[in-house]
Amino acid sequence: MNEQRLPYVFRYEPQLQDIEQVRTLAESTGNFYPEEIVVAVQLVQEAVEHGAASGYQFVFADGPSGCHGYACFGHIPLTRSSYDLYWIVVGRAWQRQGLGRSLLEAVERRVRAAGGTQLFIDTSGRDQYQATRRFYEAQGYQQAAILPDFYAPGDPKIIYSKKL
Amino acid sequence: MNEQRLPYVFRYEPQLQDIEQVRTLAESTGNFYPEEIVVAVQLVQEAVEHGAASGYQFVFADGPSGCHGYACFGHIPLTRSSYDLYWIVVGRAWQRQGLGRSLLEAVERRVRAAGGTQLFIDTSGRDQYQATRRFYEAQGYQQAAILPDFYAPGDPKIIYSKKL
Repeated sequence: MNEQRLPYVFRYEPQLQDIEQVRTLAESTGNFYPEEIVVAVQLVQEAVEHGAASGYQFVFADGPSGCHGYACFGHIPLTRSSYDLYWIVVGRAWQRQGLGRSLLEAVERRVRAAGGTQLFIDTSGRDQYQATRRFYEAQGYQQAAILPDFYAPGDPKIIYSKKL
Repeated sequence: MNEQRLPYVFRYEPQLQDIEQVRTLAESTGNFYPEEIVVAVQLVQEAVEHGAASGYQFVFADGPSGCHGYACFGHIPLTRSSYDLYWIVVGRAWQRQGLGRSLLEAVERRVRAAGGTQLFIDTSGRDQYQATRRFYEAQGYQQAAILPDFYAPGDPKIIYSKKL
């Protein structure tokens, strides 16, 4: 699917209404724990309040009915040119149409333009995240590490990475 | 070397003067980049200002002439019971006397007492950190992951972990 064919406008500046939009998007997926959603919302709040000093950067995909998906990423402190993808969320109603891929590609373009050379993604090894892991692998990300029992007993962290 | 034989008092509450003491300790080692020292100091400042809400916990080893070493650790957000060791520093004049081990053991006791089940330590794969890596390995930490070029090209991140 080609980004140009999607009816989305990509936007990089978080706005006040994104705080609630991100909460709604994350809740719609059914994929996140409540405490995870709290953190996702906090990152938007910090960026709205402190701008670039927050360390968080965003790509919002605005569609016909508000924001349909977003990604949050940032430079990893104390590294030369490594970046982390903190969140990527597509609202349940708009999944499986290539928006996740377009968002991730937009993140990669922003990171490259800022001189970033590597993007890391932490995700869970739980069954529930299998489609997510396949998605990252299809976008060229490789498993760089598995940390057993990281999130909880039986719930490992998987670190994906891609050279940009 | 037995902790009881060391002339240190362990203290867990950061105080205002620790901000400068931590800067002096970190600088004395010759091991950290200036921007790393800035971050080490920031974590103490945040804990002095916001207490436990900062997410940073400490062990300070007060000796005959002020603070001789310290460690900074904390619960990893969104994990059940995983902790990170963020910093462990022994001032150059007091190295090679077992204080690092005592500090790390004190951290492990604090983490266990709080219900923590695993402690992670990120460190660099640079030659300069070889003694540091041997130290962690001697304390029972295992290499859980190597992320090539993480800190900079040719400077990998090594993640150590230990079940507590």
